[in-house]
Amino acid sequence: MSSVALKGYVNEYLPKIQEALKKVLNEVKLRYRIVEELYNHVEEFIFRGGKRLRPISLVAAYYSVGGSEVDDLYRVATCVELLHNASLIHDDIIDRDTIRRGGPTFHVKYAMIFRDRYGARDYNHMGLSFGIIGGDLLIALGMYAITSSKFRDDQKARALESYMRAFKCIVEGECLDITYPYVHDVSEEDYYRMVDLKTGALFVESLTIGAILGDATERQITALRRYGTYAARAFQIHDDVLGIFGEEEEVGKPIGSDIREGRKNLLIIKALELFDERERAKLLKALGNPQLTKEDVLEIRDLMKERGVLDYALGKEREYVGKAIESLTLADPPLRSREVEFFKELARYFIERRK
Amino acid sequence: MSSVALKGYVNEYLPKIQEALKKVLNEVKLRYRIVEELYNHVEEFIFRGGKRLRPISLVAAYYSVGGSEVDDLYRVATCVELLHNASLIHDDIIDRDTIRRGGPTFHVKYAMIFRDRYGARDYNHMGLSFGIIGGDLLIALGMYAITSSKFRDDQKARALESYMRAFKCIVEGECLDITYPYVHDVSEEDYYRMVDLKTGALFVESLTIGAILGDATERQITALRRYGTYAARAFQIHDDVLGIFGEEEEVGKPIGSDIREGRKNLLIIKALELFDERERAKLLKALGNPQLTKEDVLEIRDLMKERGVLDYALGKEREYVGKAIESLTLADPPLRSREVEFFKELARYFIERRK
Repeated sequence: MSSVALKGYVNEYLPKIQEALKKVLNEVKLRYRIVEELYNHVEEFIFRGGKRLRPISLVAAYYSVGGSEVDDLYRVATCVELLHNASLIHDDIIDRDTIRRGGPTFHVKYAMIFRDRYGARDYNHMGLSFGIIGGDLLIALGMYAITSSKFRDDQKARALESYMRAFKCIVEGECLDITYPYVHDVSEEDYYRMVDLKTGALFVESLTIGAILGDATERQITALRRYGTYAARAFQIHDDVLGIFGEEEEVGKPIGSDIREGRKNLLIIKALELFDERERAKLLKALGNPQLTKEDVLEIRDLMKERGVLDYALGKEREYVGKAIESLTLADPPLRSREVEFFKELARYFIERRK
Repeated sequence: MSSVALKGYVNEYLPKIQEALKKVLNEVKLRYRIVEELYNHVEEFIFRGGKRLRPISLVAAYYSVGGSEVDDLYRVATCVELLHNASLIHDDIIDRDTIRRGGPTFHVKYAMIFRDRYGARDYNHMGLSFGIIGGDLLIALGMYAITSSKFRDDQKARALESYMRAFKCIVEGECLDITYPYVHDVSEEDYYRMVDLKTGALFVESLTIGAILGDATERQITALRRYGTYAARAFQIHDDVLGIFGEEEEVGKPIGSDIREGRKNLLIIKALELFDERERAKLLKALGNPQLTKEDVLEIRDLMKERGVLDYALGKEREYVGKAIESLTLADPPLRSREVEFFKELARYFIERRK
């Protein structure tokens, strides 16, 4: 991150978020044999890494609408990080991922425990089972972060409504994302719908919760929500670009995995439109083929460059960053300038990052 | 159900619960291609059956503390049924169950869709994935049932806190339940802890939510919660008894499955204590052995009768029904008599039922 306001914000608020996360997890932990260990693994998973940009954005939204310093802000801010981690744990099962933040995914870690400590024959199934309940536990803990705070009841009720909406949307988005590989006619519109649900909603509701706690006006909330939707689209498109054009060592997973898995990302949808008949046939054959070689991927990548697919995606991500930043001006009364700078730089960072 | 108050209650309130469930599901449904189908399958699953005793008990708790007739009571009451169904869907994956309420379990149904409609090679994994997100969706919808109601914000915030607590406890209880087969020293105390979490908490919080909405006093809430804990223990012990001594056709699953799966139910824990050395060795060998024959199970069953294990469990379930009913008198002001009758008959029904 090269931006001053963004860096300043992260440096100031990240430690407070981390501290609040530790506090929440510590006080909610059931200290009872086997269950305590589940909490410990969940905690280890959360503290492996993560940029905490959602809770930090929640905090920024709060201050942007004139909220005053209160301790419990950071407590509530952890709710979106906890929900995010819940969805990572469940998604890693669904995507059959084995590595997350430099360690085994949650379900793989538990599979190893049941293999090594208990000698379980069905250790993979036990790992999967603990992945389900580990994710479930984090969903409940995110609710706890809100209910255990000292904000007013009307704010808590509204924050919990936002939380519910974010969670519901994540699930709906995941449903689309995992089904699209089996469906032929996925349009760009379908793609944005999926992105708004799977990636956008949690970011949008993070901003909304911050705004609610800061007693924002409706027009401030609308501005922040619109910002969140557009910024998340830019973020996701950039993710799609990195997944195909990024450096393998930086991105941390094999280039072209979206193609191998048959995912309908923006580049793939656009390529199916812009490729000629022979090229489209090649791409269709590659989609969902786990045996695809690196050479095949590089060939498709070159075609995407030649046919303007990459430029289209890069244009779109810039367009959405512009729309996001413009949306901030809709707020009435205007958002505080320090946070406006933060949000601008955050959106730009979303499309400048290389991993 | 042979009891007059219980029957009267169910006849009066079951249709209102069913109607509220339909309404909530209908208004929350995202009408967007693939996602809409997910909602439809979730709805079909919920309406296959189920006695709705949790939402009906929530309603009874509300009226027991003097709550007055309001439409949104039934809306909120659906939250515990939705959460219960979420946990069924996730548990069925974990327990590898294939049949639920006379149809395929949720994840098995989706596996068949991906096999038959999409010809997916990994249809079992897709089924499992949809089981995870189907359960997740229902957790969110249970929250929606509360947030979308017209109760006061303080009531909604407290109801959501109860919901969170119930959910957290279910997960903790499931964690114990699935790990106990791998642990040798599971005591009767460990068993009750597991039951209170996995079965008790949702019933207790159902009663609590009803009481909160009815503006109960603290002593009314305490009485209802204690009733709920004891009644749920009686319910679960009776479930354990039915699982080993019930009629296969009535219970709907093979007798002795708890033994085959190595589950630590009350009868098994007590048998390990009361059996002599040779008998205990036989039981330990049987636990977790999926190849166990019906004859083996019948032999263990006879031993349980001879050694007083069955009588112990039957005594315990009666004891907890007594404690549950006694707890109701702690309420101050006293609970309304119609609901006291309902709760008494419900607890008795828990241990008289044959399936």
